[in-house]
Amino acid sequence: MSKLGEFELIQQIRSSVIVPENIQGIGDDCAVIPQQEGYETLVSTDMLMEGVHFLREDVNPYQLGWKSAAVNFSDIAAMGGEPIGSFLAFSLPKNLSDEWIARFMEGYQAISQQFSFPLLGGDTTSSLDRICICVTVLGKTKKGLSRKRNSAQVGDLVCVTGTLGDSAAGLDVILNKRERKEDEHWLVNRHYHPTPRLFEGIELAKTEGVHAMMDISDGIGSDLRHIIEESQVGINIQVETIPLSPQLRRYCTTNHLDAIQLATCGGEDYELVFTVSPEAEKQITVAHTIIGTVTAGNELNWEGSNKEYLGFRHF
Amino acid sequence: MSKLGEFELIQQIRSSVIVPENIQGIGDDCAVIPQQEGYETLVSTDMLMEGVHFLREDVNPYQLGWKSAAVNFSDIAAMGGEPIGSFLAFSLPKNLSDEWIARFMEGYQAISQQFSFPLLGGDTTSSLDRICICVTVLGKTKKGLSRKRNSAQVGDLVCVTGTLGDSAAGLDVILNKRERKEDEHWLVNRHYHPTPRLFEGIELAKTEGVHAMMDISDGIGSDLRHIIEESQVGINIQVETIPLSPQLRRYCTTNHLDAIQLATCGGEDYELVFTVSPEAEKQITVAHTIIGTVTAGNELNWEGSNKEYLGFRHF
Repeated sequence: MSKLGEFELIQQIRSSVIVPENIQGIGDDCAVIPQQEGYETLVSTDMLMEGVHFLREDVNPYQLGWKSAAVNFSDIAAMGGEPIGSFLAFSLPKNLSDEWIARFMEGYQAISQQFSFPLLGGDTTSSLDRICICVTVLGKTKKGLSRKRNSAQVGDLVCVTGTLGDSAAGLDVILNKRERKEDEHWLVNRHYHPTPRLFEGIELAKTEGVHAMMDISDGIGSDLRHIIEESQVGINIQVETIPLSPQLRRYCTTNHLDAIQLATCGGEDYELVFTVSPEAEKQITVAHTIIGTVTAGNELNWEGSNKEYLGFRHF
Repeated sequence: MSKLGEFELIQQIRSSVIVPENIQGIGDDCAVIPQQEGYETLVSTDMLMEGVHFLREDVNPYQLGWKSAAVNFSDIAAMGGEPIGSFLAFSLPKNLSDEWIARFMEGYQAISQQFSFPLLGGDTTSSLDRICICVTVLGKTKKGLSRKRNSAQVGDLVCVTGTLGDSAAGLDVILNKRERKEDEHWLVNRHYHPTPRLFEGIELAKTEGVHAMMDISDGIGSDLRHIIEESQVGINIQVETIPLSPQLRRYCTTNHLDAIQLATCGGEDYELVFTVSPEAEKQITVAHTIIGTVTAGNELNWEGSNKEYLGFRHF
């Protein structure tokens, strides 16, 4: 924060944000958002710490800005929610340049505009040495239409959007400083610029037979256990049906890595996983892959593999 | 995080929170909160960083938990809002004990219960070395009833709740390791356990002639400038009317400190400052002190002092 002071920074951010007319965003003690009968507000918050979630020397600020927003938008997507807005709190070391902050905000605003998620408030403070970012997002669904983790039914199919493991492979490229050709660049981009599946989530929430839904942040090896626990069901995954990108397959072959391990335990894909009745699955227009079934019992089984995939744990 | 893992910690917190029946709190990708026609949602977020906002060796975790919530509840109070709930994100170094975390949550829950602010969600991650806490709060007011910074009118009286400067004096006790007798303990308590003026804010928002309102977080020397800027008015403060506690007066005399300086620039009092028409002021039942008037122009004048009081700036 060499040149810009706190108030100047806030003024600069405030003037660059387009806020819907009926919402009061940055500039007071609180943002003020109208409520609508028959709707529910969705709220989620995520914290990103330098040294744990990202390394300052390896991430550029634009990517970090994008990702800070993306991981939160993904939580709204996971419930089938539409955007209301976001709140950005950050602590920045004093030696961080104005240029760094400007690029961070550029990335944050780029994804916010792409997904119509206006920045409505936040907090800016200094820190001794590390960057800390905390984003809180608000979304909405019609009453009773949000999709939760506790609604999986025995007999449902388990489906995912997109491909899994790309983000983990991208992280592998970064951490091992591998030479970056086309595949490596693509994987790193999947790591830094995940696409929150907001449109897919809204579309899936319109289909009555879509029961449980969540986003994949820690890898299905960990995340599916939440559905199992909350829904009191079991899940069988047919390991060979897990969707893998050709880039991931080639990268894993070249570097002797287990693609399924990355796809199930790597995390940070921010794809959606959902359970749906077999009849309803036929009506889904959103691109998806069936990877398993919901069963009685409360086990997570990996069919076609003798490994146990556990996913990422934060501590 | 020696013994407890992330999921265990979340389970423990989840089981200790009482959430209203129509709200879904911790346990899914988002919290789900019903909307009501004719109401507005208030949202605010604040970040506290170790080494900047608190020193780990000087603060006990119970106090820190209390204060993390209090400073945010104060933002809802500043708009005249009623509580909906809070979201707590924290990054904790791995060497922090389970006992520390438990005491932190105790403080957080104590104030949350006192003010009926249920904890509805959050995020728990590890950090390399420093504690980082980010709280987001949601409140509500009837449509159009929230009190903003941009509504001060020329001729209004400027009033504050409580006494100012106690928190700054408490910080002075801590930083200078002064011997703690009765006054010093009282001042330190005002620093660590500020009382968010939620009841007062709700009451004040019921009085039509109360125009602009905000909470005092950086000291009125800084905070009043927001009202001046947003309302396009000036403010005259009669310095000798600023309410000072007897504890603060005695402490400043003993230690040769300028009590007015602490009261105007120290910050962290979390009292409310509001502007009100002289007629409406007579109807206010909430305890308050008149400290000045709203004028034309856009200056902040300190009558009865030749000093300029500037308040705290974060960078």
